Amino acid sequence: MSAESNAPVRLVIVGGVAGGASAATRARRMNEQAEIILFEKDDDVSFANCGLPYHIGEEIKDRDALVVASADFLRRRFRLDVRTREEVVSIDREKRVVTVVRRGMTSEQDKTYEQPYDKVILAPGASPIVPDLPGVDSDNVLTLRNLVDMDRIKARVDSGSVRRAVVVGAGYIGLEMVEQLRRRGVAVDLIELRDQVLPLLDHEMARPIEEALRRNNVGVHTGVGLESIQRDGELATSVRLSDGKELPTELVILGIGVRPNARLASEAGLEIGGTGGISIDEYSRTSDPDIYAVGDASEPVYGPTGTPMRVPLAGPANRSGRLAGEHAVTGMSATATSVWGTSVVRVFDVSVGMTGLTRASAKRFGKEADSVTVVAKHHAGYFPGAETMTLKLVYEPNTGKVLGAQCVGGEGIDKRIDVIATAMHFGGSVRDLAGLDLAYAPPFGSAKDPVHMAAFAASNSLDGIESFRDSDASLEEVQIVDVRGATEIEKAPLCKASGSIHIPVDELRDRLDELDRTKPTVVSCAVGVRGHIAARILRQNGFEVQNLAGGATVRNRCFD
Amino acid sequence: MSAESNAPVRLVIVGGVAGGASAATRARRMNEQAEIILFEKDDDVSFANCGLPYHIGEEIKDRDALVVASADFLRRRFRLDVRTREEVVSIDREKRVVTVVRRGMTSEQDKTYEQPYDKVILAPGASPIVPDLPGVDSDNVLTLRNLVDMDRIKARVDSGSVRRAVVVGAGYIGLEMVEQLRRRGVAVDLIELRDQVLPLLDHEMARPIEEALRRNNVGVHTGVGLESIQRDGELATSVRLSDGKELPTELVILGIGVRPNARLASEAGLEIGGTGGISIDEYSRTSDPDIYAVGDASEPVYGPTGTPMRVPLAGPANRSGRLAGEHAVTGMSATATSVWGTSVVRVFDVSVGMTGLTRASAKRFGKEADSVTVVAKHHAGYFPGAETMTLKLVYEPNTGKVLGAQCVGGEGIDKRIDVIATAMHFGGSVRDLAGLDLAYAPPFGSAKDPVHMAAFAASNSLDGIESFRDSDASLEEVQIVDVRGATEIEKAPLCKASGSIHIPVDELRDRLDELDRTKPTVVSCAVGVRGHIAARILRQNGFEVQNLAGGATVRNRCFD
Ligand SMILES: Cc1cc2nc3c(=O)[nH]c(=O)nc-3n(C[C@H](O)[C@H](O)[C@H](O)COP(=O)(O)OP(=O)(O)OC[C@H]3O[C@@H](n4cnc5c(N)ncnc54)[C@H](O)[C@@H]3O)c2cc1C
Ligand SMILES: Cc1cc2nc3c(=O)[nH]c(=O)nc-3n(C[C@H](O)[C@H](O)[C@H](O)COP(=O)(O)OP(=O)(O)OC[C@H]3O[C@@H](n4cnc5c(N)ncnc54)[C@H](O)[C@@H]3O)c2cc1C
Ligand SMILES: CC(C)(COP(=O)(O)OP(=O)(O)OC[C@H]1O[C@@H](n2cnc3c(N)ncnc32)[C@H](O)[C@@H]1OP(=O)(O)O)[C@@H](O)C(=O)NCCC(=O)NCCS
Ligand SMILES: CC(C)(COP(=O)(O)OP(=O)(O)OC[C@H]1O[C@@H](n2cnc3c(N)ncnc32)[C@H](O)[C@@H]1OP(=O)(O)O)[C@@H](O)C(=O)NCCC(=O)NCCS
Repeated sequence: MSAESNAPVRLVIVGGVAGGASAATRARRMNEQAEIILFEKDDDVSFANCGLPYHIGEEIKDRDALVVASADFLRRRFRLDVRTREEVVSIDREKRVVTVVRRGMTSEQDKTYEQPYDKVILAPGASPIVPDLPGVDSDNVLTLRNLVDMDRIKARVDSGSVRRAVVVGAGYIGLEMVEQLRRRGVAVDLIELRDQVLPLLDHEMARPIEEALRRNNVGVHTGVGLESIQRDGELATSVRLSDGKELPTELVILGIGVRPNARLASEAGLEIGGTGGISIDEYSRTSDPDIYAVGDASEPVYGPTGTPMRVPLAGPANRSGRLAGEHAVTGMSATATSVWGTSVVRVFDVSVGMTGLTRASAKRFGKEADSVTVVAKHHAGYFPGAETMTLKLVYEPNTGKVLGAQCVGGEGIDKRIDVIATAMHFGGSVRDLAGLDLAYAPPFGSAKDPVHMAAFAASNSLDGIESFRDSDASLEEVQIVDVRGATEIEKAPLCKASGSIHIPVDELRDRLDELDRTKPTVVSCAVGVRGHIAARILRQNGFEVQNLAGGATVRNRCFD
Repeated sequence: MSAESNAPVRLVIVGGVAGGASAATRARRMNEQAEIILFEKDDDVSFANCGLPYHIGEEIKDRDALVVASADFLRRRFRLDVRTREEVVSIDREKRVVTVVRRGMTSEQDKTYEQPYDKVILAPGASPIVPDLPGVDSDNVLTLRNLVDMDRIKARVDSGSVRRAVVVGAGYIGLEMVEQLRRRGVAVDLIELRDQVLPLLDHEMARPIEEALRRNNVGVHTGVGLESIQRDGELATSVRLSDGKELPTELVILGIGVRPNARLASEAGLEIGGTGGISIDEYSRTSDPDIYAVGDASEPVYGPTGTPMRVPLAGPANRSGRLAGEHAVTGMSATATSVWGTSVVRVFDVSVGMTGLTRASAKRFGKEADSVTVVAKHHAGYFPGAETMTLKLVYEPNTGKVLGAQCVGGEGIDKRIDVIATAMHFGGSVRDLAGLDLAYAPPFGSAKDPVHMAAFAASNSLDGIESFRDSDASLEEVQIVDVRGATEIEKAPLCKASGSIHIPVDELRDRLDELDRTKPTVVSCAVGVRGHIAARILRQNGFEVQNLAGGATVRNRCFD
């Protein structure tokens, strides 16, 4: 699917970081004769965007470590014509030139010129969204996208003038900033418009993250918007929330999402997709086959729906850049694979990962979805250091096709997400997951891995062996049987489950006549395992019974 | 694919640990009416075999932690008729009874009786191989399979009488014992007949393990056999090796493999397979459809060859037990999936995992196989704590179908093996791996994961973009170009590569005339990345060139 070329094609690349630099290096490897011009409007190419928060928090101590490949390095090793501080401002598709503004020391010294091309790859990324609010232009209200942004934020923190910060937006970048600011000893308030942190996750799966934030003394404000920013001169001094609360602050970080840099493309008449990114085909070609678009600015195919969607993540940007670079200089490449939004974030001692659809997003996309939730150890429970994870598996009713997964916990959550993302790449079902042959030794996993456990539970549901009650479903008008021991129940009573009957699972067979066989029954335990056993006993004794998914542990995360 | 049943079937299970106990619990969940009798010849059921070494080393402090489910627990929760200290000694398939010996306090008190059955599940596991050597029956020459074995070894170590031990066999269990004995301060010599530790791996992939052993002051003796054991009364005092060496010792652990417990089956006239295990079909039924066999004693289908093979690992035993238990009491279940020998072991600070075929085993099985090897970080290199792993990907020429992988390093090697094992489950190719959407954030991975890197390299090879020279191949009669910097080369000269020409990759384009374009050329760098760039430059300049797989790092592991 690849073939080298010696055609002296002139390739112009717009944007010199994840997608653009990956395109450039691969293009060079595939074609020594190509002329490859890499435009980057800012000072730096090929830096580690994803590492920026960690240098602010000084977890990454060395700033230089963030420059993965300098302009000089790219020139030397790949003979790339790297032009930093040069912005491509328009594309003339008829003349086949791009117009470039070379930044001078002052804007009067800016120079504009035209650069001819045979092929263009657009990799301009995305820009942080800045809400149109009074005070938002204060010197200490900042976004984070590149090294300059990072330096600006870090300088403020380093100066010691920041004792309190407000982070707006509880997505990945917002949470990373919260964590890293806390590392620096800054008191942090986190504001999120949606009623949970990490709105991409199902509510209860985000709960352990919220708890980690609170444990680390972060002020978590969900379900409230940023109304205004009060300032004193050039500096913001407090923010006002939609619930009237006012939070004093010396630094505001806006992390409310990104907007694709699609203007260049749209002004050139290229097709823009439904989610605002540049439309592309399976070779990342735009509606003009000589112009490609990759990364955050583009709309690859989103696996779960099979339709184009922006998924602004580094992996897809790197991979699509690589393929587009190859295709642009040789005329062929492998086709791009679907993206699944596979992602992960560490928030203090809790990490969470996801891939594909959640129950909530399935609903938004109009996709029927079932789910199971299991709570299990990341390696053999008898081996020291076992950490607990909660794994939620979302799948298609009837077929069992895996639609997505979320996993929150400590060690090893990324492994389970990657395994499930791999299965999804192949259109695998929960039955496939149940049969996976995964590596097991006590320090690494369990003979029945959490992935297997979730898959077993889902298969049981598909086969009608077990029916799950959604963790947050109403338990009114059902007979609730809590099969935990008395002390367990006392410690963590089941939320919104008034009138539940307590029969430990081991006594259930002997105490069946304490229950009403004619009533729809829901069993619950701590996480679902004993519930499963109890449900099987009851079912075989003529009850119409459901097992509460994830037991009390997960249900109690659904409610405040 | 599952359906519960209320048939009062009488199920006899032989062996009460991984396969047997898993069968029993699932059988109960699927059928409350079944009579389920679990025979275990020893004292303990349902214990963690895989944890035994770690209790000897006191990494697992609490012995009770190793009992995953006691006999009492199984009786209480699952109404299983657990009969410990009862050995099934024969099966009369015509009468449909098994003969059982119930062990008394003394052998005179043993009682023999017949137990009728409708279905039998054989889960008798395997037994450690004990070589027929003089001295092998000494009191301090021991094997490790169950809690009694463990207690025996641990008591010796606890007594303080063991300052020096010899471990025979450098497979998983042998290596775990070595590590744990070192933890206890015991001096250890390790003996392995094959010329490498972990003979299941390709030679160079086992090297980092051997180095870890030496760093931890283990005497590693490969390519030598155990000739005899010298004793003084009941105790072995030294072992003699085939090379004449004599090693004094106070404890000998035999870890040279296991033999399937297939006698019961063979005596009952059931079919035995080519690797000595009991033959089974996709429902784990033996040649008698009322008798199932699972776990170490059986021969599931080995994925890479599609033929039956013993793979004595806990995951397959647990999963096949679960399915057989279900099938035996309901008449249906999902079919068993192939096993891939996916496995992992930690040896001090180095871990290694594998799945499917190695280059060596592919050869043994007569399967054509290519491979690539990459060396990469387990997470973003710029994030603190990145550990280096070596990943070798084995695949089918032409199709690119993944045949196997080996990964050695620190953190995260298990994740890559599980991802690749998952892809193999689906018959995936290296091109699939190249397109996987894996989770990335700096603490967890890289935008281009090691799995991607290996897949890119393999795809390049398939497409003829790059030709790899096997790491251990002869470099005679080729022009060798080492493209590393001078100090790097000085520190780690390329093994068996006399006359190599040194041109740093960044100077290559300008120094092409120092090379002979008519000579087959091999380039090498530290791990293969710069070699790849150099190979591409040379190729496009008319050279016939190969890139040395894994560069100097991997080549130098191939030779002593
Ligand atoms: C703080 C932070 C943390 C992140 N963490 C993660 C993470 O953990 N995991 C993950 O998967 N993703 C993460 N991301 C997202 C990831 O960095 C992006 O998805 C990825 O960088 C997108 O690549 P790209 O090439 O499309 O855009 P970018 O990498 O942003 O590169 C675009 C470049 O184009 C330049 N440019 C734009 N317009 C022009 C023009 N007209 N002319 C010249 N140059 C132009 C821009 O200056 C920019 O440098 C993070 C992002 C940030 C900001
Ligand atoms: C020290 C050690 C470490 C290991 N580490 C790992 C690891 O890290 N990862 C991994 O995947 N695998 C590991 N294994 C292998 C794993 O434990 C086995 O693959 C698994 O236990 C096999 O399950 P099984 O049910 O077939 O046999 P077993 O678990 O051995 O159970 C068989 C039982 O049957 C009983 N029995 C035999 N014959 C009769 C009879 N006639 N009547 C009554 N009872 C009988 C035996 O006493 C035994 O208790 C390890 C094994 C050992 C010994
Ligand atoms: C670094 C960057 C410039 C890309 O450079 P690159 O040379 O393409 O990528 P790498 O250094 O990772 O090398 C990958 C190449 O080496 C090859 N390779 C890797 N290991 C190899 C080995 N052992 N043997 C042979 N080839 C190997 C791969 O096949 C690939 O080559 P290909 O694309 O021709 O198939 C670009 O990814 C970048 O700018 N990254 C930083 C920005 C960013 O990604 N930000 C977001 C995340 S923080
Ligand atoms: C422990 C042992 C007795 C098996 O017991 P088990 O009850 O079948 O297994 P688990 O406790 O792991 O529970 C798994 C069951 O719970 C279900 N389950 C797990 N989490 C669940 C949840 N949150 N909700 C609903 N069901 C859940 C699974 O679906 C599975 O049920 P199924 O088989 O009916 O589908 C057996 O594996 C054993 O003896 N192990 C020790 C020996 C051994 O394996 N040695 C080698 C490795 S050291």
